Amino acid sequence: MAEAHAVVLLSGGLDSATALAIAREQRFVCHALSVEYGQRHAAELDAARRVAAAHGACEHRIMRVDLAGIGGSALTDRAIPVPEAPSEGIPVTYVPARNTIMLALALAWAEVLDARDIFIGVNVLDASGYPDCRPEFIEAFGRLAQLATRAGVEGRPCRIHTPLIGWTKAEIIRAGTRLQVDYAQTVSCYQADAEGRACGRCDACRLRRAGFAAAGVPDPTRYQGL
Amino acid sequence: MAEAHAVVLLSGGLDSATALAIAREQRFVCHALSVEYGQRHAAELDAARRVAAAHGACEHRIMRVDLAGIGGSALTDRAIPVPEAPSEGIPVTYVPARNTIMLALALAWAEVLDARDIFIGVNVLDASGYPDCRPEFIEAFGRLAQLATRAGVEGRPCRIHTPLIGWTKAEIIRAGTRLQVDYAQTVSCYQADAEGRACGRCDACRLRRAGFAAAGVPDPTRYQGL
Repeated sequence: MAEAHAVVLLSGGLDSATALAIAREQRFVCHALSVEYGQRHAAELDAARRVAAAHGACEHRIMRVDLAGIGGSALTDRAIPVPEAPSEGIPVTYVPARNTIMLALALAWAEVLDARDIFIGVNVLDASGYPDCRPEFIEAFGRLAQLATRAGVEGRPCRIHTPLIGWTKAEIIRAGTRLQVDYAQTVSCYQADAEGRACGRCDACRLRRAGFAAAGVPDPTRYQGL
Repeated sequence: MAEAHAVVLLSGGLDSATALAIAREQRFVCHALSVEYGQRHAAELDAARRVAAAHGACEHRIMRVDLAGIGGSALTDRAIPVPEAPSEGIPVTYVPARNTIMLALALAWAEVLDARDIFIGVNVLDASGYPDCRPEFIEAFGRLAQLATRAGVEGRPCRIHTPLIGWTKAEIIRAGTRLQVDYAQTVSCYQADAEGRACGRCDACRLRRAGFAAAGVPDPTRYQGL
């Protein structure tokens, strides 16, 4: 039987590194896709390169889309500070339609590769509350994907895999640790410095740090000023 | 009452120019969006600039996404010739997930602009048979858009307008002519030369030429070698 190919969205953070390790465990030939969208934490793209190489992706592609040109998020507009305290509702680090764009790019590449599987590391329990990480969003994208492509029309629709969607951050870290994910290579911080060192104060840092503590796994994150 | 803003996807072809004119007739303040995706007929982007200026868009943005890097279409891979005879099924000019990507980018920009309306000039009667021009695809994208964004979650979802979807090419041309669309400014040809002159032989040229004939409107298209 031919090997099954998958496109794995890989930001360079903790979640997507774990999703890649899970896809590899499930014997998929993994084509890693990162998107350079003008994010202020571009160090995550260096992390994505390391993670793709370390975790057996057969190739790694970085696609560029200039979302900084339209702004509207603390992650793409440097005039909007990254919050360092928890906020109510959807935080200003939300990037408009980001996961819709990333899944659309993954869908395009999957169709060209004749891959029927896309992995994305979204999760909702210990997360920032972004609308495009919820199960109902993913289900709607899956229905769209069936209608959107030649492959779908011809009976080879793409499946969207979200192995982490119902897990706590601690469960994600435990699963990744079992699969030998080296979390020291990953960058979650929204305002990591050029060397990938984390601020320790933003929402992403808080969730990550609490996850390691709850999992009982030593936190390998490199923090700024330490 | 405040003016309503809309994002209008504008390829520079006949259909999207007509969609822009219809959106303007409906009193929308129109933000035109073109996508440079590595298409071989880049002359359509020059056409989009002319059409946006001529038809009262308040601004025109060109976003770049490198789909030529992944290939898989005669429009993005110069090793695949553009067919010059009708073909069965979905033609090789189909670009994987193109309209999903374009609508995702439009959705992102609409959310930043606080615009609740997106116009796209898809139609299915005298068309090439692309899966992502069908009403069921557009409906699925509309459902996705409600779930994908902060605006949707907060009760301000985006509507996807497809004013041309059930029209013949002749009906589109008659409507645009009534709205004073200058079709000489538009480029439909898949292999237009650098000056925007059409080949007269590809699927897009055949549909366009037949549309002018059926509408009884003089065809202003500039053809190569004439």
